[in-house]
This record gives sequence, structure tokens and C-alpha cells, in this order.
Amino acid sequence: MISWELLNIIGTIAFALSGVIVAMEERYDIIGVYILGFVTAFGGGAVRNLLIGVPVSALWDQELLFTIAFLLMTGAFFLPQVWFRHWTRWGVLFDAVGLAAFAVQGAIFAAQMDLPLSAAIAAAALTGAGGGIIRDLLAGRRPLVLSRDIYVAWTVPAGLLIGSGLVDQFFGYVLILGGIVSLRMLSVYYNWQLPRRQLPSS
Amino acid sequence: MISWELLNIIGTIAFALSGVIVAMEERYDIIGVYILGFVTAFGGGAVRNLLIGVPVSALWDQELLFTIAFLLMTGAFFLPQVWFRHWTRWGVLFDAVGLAAFAVQGAIFAAQMDLPLSAAIAAAALTGAGGGIIRDLLAGRRPLVLSRDIYVAWTVPAGLLIGSGLVDQFFGYVLILGGIVSLRMLSVYYNWQLPRRQLPSS
Amino acid sequence: MISWELLNIIGTIAFALSGVIVAMEERYDIIGVYILGFVTAFGGGAVRNLLIGVPVSALWDQELLFTIAFLLMTGAFFLPQVWFRHWTRWGVLFDAVGLAAFAVQGAIFAAQMDLPLSAAIAAAALTGAGGGIIRDLLAGRRPLVLSRDIYVAWTVPAGLLIGSGLVDQFFGYVLILGGIVSLRMLSVYYNWQLPRRQLPSS
Repeated sequence: MISWELLNIIGTIAFALSGVIVAMEERYDIIGVYILGFVTAFGGGAVRNLLIGVPVSALWDQELLFTIAFLLMTGAFFLPQVWFRHWTRWGVLFDAVGLAAFAVQGAIFAAQMDLPLSAAIAAAALTGAGGGIIRDLLAGRRPLVLSRDIYVAWTVPAGLLIGSGLVDQFFGYVLILGGIVSLRMLSVYYNWQLPRRQLPSS
Repeated sequence: MISWELLNIIGTIAFALSGVIVAMEERYDIIGVYILGFVTAFGGGAVRNLLIGVPVSALWDQELLFTIAFLLMTGAFFLPQVWFRHWTRWGVLFDAVGLAAFAVQGAIFAAQMDLPLSAAIAAAALTGAGGGIIRDLLAGRRPLVLSRDIYVAWTVPAGLLIGSGLVDQFFGYVLILGGIVSLRMLSVYYNWQLPRRQLPSS
Repeated sequence: MISWELLNIIGTIAFALSGVIVAMEERYDIIGVYILGFVTAFGGGAVRNLLIGVPVSALWDQELLFTIAFLLMTGAFFLPQVWFRHWTRWGVLFDAVGLAAFAVQGAIFAAQMDLPLSAAIAAAALTGAGGGIIRDLLAGRRPLVLSRDIYVAWTVPAGLLIGSGLVDQFFGYVLILGGIVSLRMLSVYYNWQLPRRQLPSS
């Protein structure tokens, strides 16, 4: 289970930092920064536990992770201004890493439970996107999940490859994680879009 | 349990299509259409399972329903333009059918568990409205639940009639379902309103 | 467990009334008033049960509380206009009482479960703020949790004092409850602020 734990830590830290950046963009006070960071970081895991059937109380067993997230968020709040010159890209990057780590983790779990392929795809998407959805709703933003550039579609390969059993080893998980992060960042950079269709709003 | 299953299928399909229509109104891409459709369709059931105490993992046992919803949503996305001439009314209709099917289902469950009448009313309202609330929150819209014309009030008769044991047969369930859909559509058409009271906003 | 029950009743009633006031400010109809009241009142408890691991179905055992909340909300809807002269402050007060009661309750639970101190702090904050977050999301408002004046920070002392075992008696709980309500109301009145930091929005 080392890969499960590792993915959990990576996803949690990345989403915590993405929450901090959104909170500072919205000019929240220091408590607002902690709240948005914690909710983004652990909300993803809570959604995963709810959807997958892990008791939600397992949430409270992660004291080490709470402490790491708290220290990181405090550091980010007091970071010198110069570090934030490229903060927009950092926020998008942290969100991409969180998305990828939790997507792979959700797919691994579904595969281990012998759930059908469609469930693995859904688990990857929902586990990956859960924390970010809560963050955006609380911040009063349009959820990134439904953003203009390609976001949640990149979790589908994770669901397919892991859910079908094609990839079932640590090295493969890392490759998928790196692939998702890269594709997500390229989507933002080049503003890749999927086909869309418009109905006039009522 | 045939009526329970049937109501689940009807509610899921109706909410899936209502999600697709909202997504196209908001000009989401094809993945956004699938996401909003799935979340609306299965979010209602997830809320129901959470509130009623069914394990949420039961969510993943519905592979047939996943496949049906996926094919329907794909079809709707590629439907020729002419079919959408009256799309606004279709969107409202699908939402009404989902509301009615899940409201009846929530009330049946509460009655089978010998929960008190107030719980049957609440279960009908919450199960019926859950999927639509999630859809509207994700789409950044004011939830239909709190809309100007009468919406969730029509679930109260379902809770009363089924929760009190007056209606406990398949034929009665169908009558209530038809009644809710009709009353909801008439509310929209004639813009029926309940009394309201205003306090100046702070 | 008398203090647990009492805190539950106080929190539920206070949040119900705060939901009613928000609903009337937004000019919702009478069903909207009931919905927002119930969701605010019992949403806090549902979030608590979810996070803490109490079965959510325990929600339906509170028939007496449902009835009390229903009667109170009906009364508030028909209250003569003159009573609402100071409604803004009443809405803030009810929300503060709900926040305090549920924060103390969440911290007591975490302490009884021998959860670590960080979990007690988180439980106090999340249990206290849960109902209000749902209310604000449904009403399309920026959550009070992230408001300009100090809100959720006042739950931290409850988590610290109760989670560390320093306070473990009814009288102490009441003192903390009174302290949180007073500090919250003073924050609003004097517009107390915590330090904040701004990044330009992307």
C-alpha cells in the first residue's frame, strides 16, 4: 500500500497549496486561507471515502498530514512577494498534481475492489476532482471541472488503464501521474478545447 | 421491489437528460455535458443513500444504468438542432419527472423503514431535490428548489400519502408520480406562486 | 449526555431561525423558508454525523426537534413586521449561537473519542460551520465562513480547551458557548479583522 499512501500525501499537499493560492487571490484572511487549504486538501479524500465506502472517520487518523499541511500553508501565507511572480501557474500546477494523484488513487482502489471498468473511470474522475469542486464552490467560483480548457477528461486514461488491469505496478502509476499533470498543463498553456455545443440560455 | 427499481431508472434517466440540457445551455464541452449529466442523475441517488443509510458504495453496482445514461447523453449531444426547438420545456419536463420519481421512491423507503411521517415528508423532498441541487450548484445557478414557481412543495403530497400508509401499491405510486409531474409543469406554465415575505437584504 | 442533547437542540433552533431570516432576505416563498431553515438546522448535524462517523440515518430520530423547528419557522414567517426592525442583528445572533453550540458539541465528541488535538480543532470548526455553509451555498451567497469579520476562528478555542481536556464539565461548556457568541457578535459590531494577504486575481 506504499503507493496508495504516497499518492494520498502528494494529492493532499498539492490541493492544500492550490487552496491557499485561491484564498489569497480572493483576499481571504489567514483563517480563510487555512480553511480553504484544509477543505481542498482533505475534502478530496472525504469525497473519496464517502463514494468508495471507507468510513469517513478515517479522516481523523491523518494527524501527520494535518501538521504538514498546516506548516506548508503557514509558510505559503508568509512567503516573500517575489516568490509569487508566477503564482498563477503554480496554482494551476498544484491543482493538476492533486487531480492526477487522487485520480490514480481512486482508480487503484476501484481495481482492487474488482469494480467494473465504468466504476473505475467514475472513481478516478470523482476522487480527482472532489477537492477542487469543494474549493471552487466555497470560493464562489465556477468549478474548474467545467472549465473551458480540458480538465477532468485527463482522468479518463487513469480509469481505463488501471481499471482494466493493464497498469498495476508502482512504476506504471507514476507514469500515469506524470502524464496527467503534463497533459493538464499543456491544455492550459495551449488552451486546448473539446467540442462543445450551445443551446441558447433560457 | 420492482417499483423501487423502476422509479430509480426513471429518475436517473430524467435527471441525466436535464443535466445535459443545462450543460448545453451553459455551453460546456462534451466532457462537461457527461459530468453534469452523471452528477445530476446519480447525485440524487447518492444523496438518498447518504440520508437513508444505504451504503454509498451501492452506487457502483449500477453498471447497466451507467451505460444507459452514457448512451442517452451521447445521443442528446449529437441530436439534430431541430429537436431542440422546444428544449426549454424538455429540460423542465425531465427535471419534473426526476423530482417525482425520486420523491416517490424516498417516501416509499421511509414508509418501509417505519420512519415517522415527518421523516417521510423530508425524505421525499430531499431525495427528489438532491440531484437538481447538485446540478444547479455546479452550474453556478440559483437552485431550482428555491425557484419562483412551485417546485419542492409538490413532493409534500408524496410524503404525506405514502408516509401515512394511505398509498402502498404500485398503481398508487404511478398516480402520485403523474400528479407531481403535471402539477410541476402547470406551475411553470401558469407561473403559480406560493406566498412569500420579504425582508430588506442586509 | 444531557449537555450533548441540549447543545444539539440549541444549535438546531438557532440555525433554523438564521435560515428563515436569510430566506426572507432573499424573498423566497414559504416553502423556500422551510427548506432553508431545515437544511441549515439539520445540515449542520448531518455534516457532523458524516465527519464523525455517526450513522446519518440517526437524522430521522429527531421527530420532536423537527416539530419544534417547524412551529418556530411558521411563527417567524407570520411574525408582525415590527419585530423585524432589528432583524439583521437577530440573523447574525442566531447564526452565532448555532456556530457556538455545534462547535462545542463537535469538540466534546472528538475529546470523548480520544481523537488528537488537531482533530478536535477541525471537528469544532467543521461541525460549527457546516449548517451555515450549506445555507449560504443554497442561497447563492459567499459563505459566512470566509467573511470579512472574524467567524470560524472563534471555534478554535473550543477545540483547544475541550480537545486538550482542560474543560470537560457542563459549566465549562456553557462558558465557552457564551464566550464564542460574545466574541462573534463583537467581531461584527466592531468589524474586527484578521491579517490578510492579497494576490491579484487571475
